[in-house]
Amino acid sequence: MAISLKDVAEQAGVSVKTVSNVVNGYRHVTPATRQRVQQVIDELGYRPNLTARHLRKGRTGIIALALPELGNPYFAELADAVINYAAGLDRIVLLDHTYGRRDQEVLFTQGFRARLIDGLILSPIELENEDLLARGHDAPLVLLGEREYDAPYDHVAIDNVAAARTATQHLLDLGRRRIAFIGARHGRSRQPAHLRLRGWRETVTAAGAAADDALVATTDGYTRQDGARAMARLLDSGTAPDAVFCYNDLIAIGAMRTLTERGLRVPEDVAVVGFDDIEDGRYCTATLTTIAPHKQAIARAAVDALLARLEGGAEGEPESRRVRPGFALVPRESTLGRP
Amino acid sequence: MAISLKDVAEQAGVSVKTVSNVVNGYRHVTPATRQRVQQVIDELGYRPNLTARHLRKGRTGIIALALPELGNPYFAELADAVINYAAGLDRIVLLDHTYGRRDQEVLFTQGFRARLIDGLILSPIELENEDLLARGHDAPLVLLGEREYDAPYDHVAIDNVAAARTATQHLLDLGRRRIAFIGARHGRSRQPAHLRLRGWRETVTAAGAAADDALVATTDGYTRQDGARAMARLLDSGTAPDAVFCYNDLIAIGAMRTLTERGLRVPEDVAVVGFDDIEDGRYCTATLTTIAPHKQAIARAAVDALLARLEGGAEGEPESRRVRPGFALVPRESTLGRP
Repeated sequence: MAISLKDVAEQAGVSVKTVSNVVNGYRHVTPATRQRVQQVIDELGYRPNLTARHLRKGRTGIIALALPELGNPYFAELADAVINYAAGLDRIVLLDHTYGRRDQEVLFTQGFRARLIDGLILSPIELENEDLLARGHDAPLVLLGEREYDAPYDHVAIDNVAAARTATQHLLDLGRRRIAFIGARHGRSRQPAHLRLRGWRETVTAAGAAADDALVATTDGYTRQDGARAMARLLDSGTAPDAVFCYNDLIAIGAMRTLTERGLRVPEDVAVVGFDDIEDGRYCTATLTTIAPHKQAIARAAVDALLARLEGGAEGEPESRRVRPGFALVPRESTLGRP
Repeated sequence: MAISLKDVAEQAGVSVKTVSNVVNGYRHVTPATRQRVQQVIDELGYRPNLTARHLRKGRTGIIALALPELGNPYFAELADAVINYAAGLDRIVLLDHTYGRRDQEVLFTQGFRARLIDGLILSPIELENEDLLARGHDAPLVLLGEREYDAPYDHVAIDNVAAARTATQHLLDLGRRRIAFIGARHGRSRQPAHLRLRGWRETVTAAGAAADDALVATTDGYTRQDGARAMARLLDSGTAPDAVFCYNDLIAIGAMRTLTERGLRVPEDVAVVGFDDIEDGRYCTATLTTIAPHKQAIARAAVDALLARLEGGAEGEPESRRVRPGFALVPRESTLGRP
C-alpha cells in the first residue's frame, strides 16, 4: 500500500499540515522539524508529488510575472518586491521576459504555460487593446504599468500624469524654461510614454514655458544608450534645453553621460530628472533627481488583485479595478546641485 | 470517457507532439497552429494538466536558479542569460533569492521545492562545505561563482585568481604602486572574495608594490553603499591609495562616488577597477574599467551541466567537473582617463 502523508505525520510525531508544509517547501517550518520530517519521508519511502496538491486545490501555487526585461533595474527591483511579497503568501513566482514585444505579450496573455500557473501579472509595452479583448484564456490576469486598456482586467499603476506634472513643476520652480522630454515613442496615441508626455506638456504649457515638438525626443527603447543618443540629437539640433525630464532613470543616466562628454554641467547648464528611483541614480555623478514609484505598494497591489480574482472563482466577475499606488519626488544633485 | 491528447490531435489535424507543445506552452508553435489547437481543446473540453507529463517523464521541465539578489545587475544579467538559454532547450527557469544567507542556501540545496523542480543551479555566498556534504537530497545541483567546495558537484566559475591578477597588473602597468582592495569579508579562509584577494596579493607582491593589510578594506555586503563606505574608511585611515581594485562593479561605483565627494579625481588621483561588467559601469562618470566574465558562456555551461546530470540518470555518477568560462579586461576612463 502506498505511504500516505498521514503515515509520515504519525511516524514523525507532527501534524499532517506540517508534513504538507515540508513537502511543499513552505518556509515557515523550523529547520529541526524539516529535518525530522525529511528523515521519516526517506525512511518510509514516501513519494509526494505535485499531483495530489494540484488535484485537490486545482492550483499550482505558482503565479507568473511577465516583465519587459530584467536588465532594467526598475523591473529587477519590482520583481524582487513581488517575489518577496508573494513568498509571504506561500506563492511561488515564475519570472518571464516579454522583451516588450507584442507577439510575446500576446503569447503570455493567451495562456503560455497556462497549465503551470494559477494566474499572470503582466507589464505590457506593445500589447494592443484588441489583443486583450481577443483573449480566450480565463486564467486571472493583472496588468501593471503605464499603458492603459479598455478591457476587463485589474490594472495597477501610479498616476503617471500627476507624477510627470510633479517632475516638470520641480524644474519650473528652479527657473528652467526650456524643458525637454526624452523617451516618447513614435506616432501612437497609446504609446507607453503618452501619460508622462501629457503631464509634461500640460505643465509647461500652463506655465507659459516652451512646449514645442523640437523639445520632445523619441527613443527606440528605454536604455542608457537610448538616452545618450537622444540627448546628443537634442544638442545637435540646436534646441538648447536648460533641463530635461526623462521617461526613466536609465535614459536620464545616458543623457547625463552625453552632457558630461559635451562639457556641459549638470545641473548648472542642464538640469535632469528621471523616473523610477533605481539605485544607480543614488550613486551616479551627479546623483539623479527622480520620481520614486512606491514599488512595495505596487507589488502588494498586483499580487493581492491576482489572488482576489483567484479566490473569487466562478462566482461572477466584479468590475475591473484600477489601483493607484503612491509616488514621491526625490530631489538630488542633478537638479539641486552639490550641497 | 476522458478526452485524450490524441483526440485533440485528430480533431485539429495536427500531430500529438504539436498538441503536446501547445499544452506545455513551448514556443516553437506558430500562432495560427496554437490558436487552432486551443480552439479544439476548448470545444472538446480537454483538460490537460501537468500530471501526465510528470508521470510519464518523471520531470517537470523546470529548473531552479537560486541567486543572492536580483537587485545586483550582475545577477539580473546572468539570470537573463540563463533564462534565455534554457528556454531554447524547452526548460523553464524558476528564479529564487537566497539573500546570500546560509540558512536559505541550505534550504535550497536540501530540496526546497524539490517536487517542483528537476534540478538546481545555486550561486552560494555563505554555504559551508559541510552543508553540501550533509546534503541528503539527490536532485542534480550545479554550483556557480567564486566559492569553491570539496563536494561532488559540478562547479562553473571563471578563473577568479587569474582575473584578479589581470586587473591588478593593469593598474601596475599604469604606474600605480599603492593599490587597495575593497570587498574582502571578515576572517574566513573560504570567504567569497578570497580568490580575487589572492590574485591581488600575489600580483602586487611580485611587483614589489605595497601589499599591507591597511590596503585591504572589508565590506559587509557587495552594494554601492558598501563600496562608498569602505572607500571613506580607506581615505580616513590615511592609507592614501593611488588605485583601488574592487570585488565588483557596484562596490567600485560606490567607491568612485566617495572619491568625487572628497574632491579626488578618477583616475588622476585614484584609478578604479571593478569586476562584472554590468551596464551601469559603461555610463557612469568616469566610465568604469572592469573584468568582464563571459556571462553567456557561464549560463550555457551551468544549464548544460545540469541537463547532462539529468540525462545521466542513475547510471553511475561521473566525477564532478569544473568548468571555467572566459573573461576579459575592459579598460575605460576610470583607469585610462578621458580620451
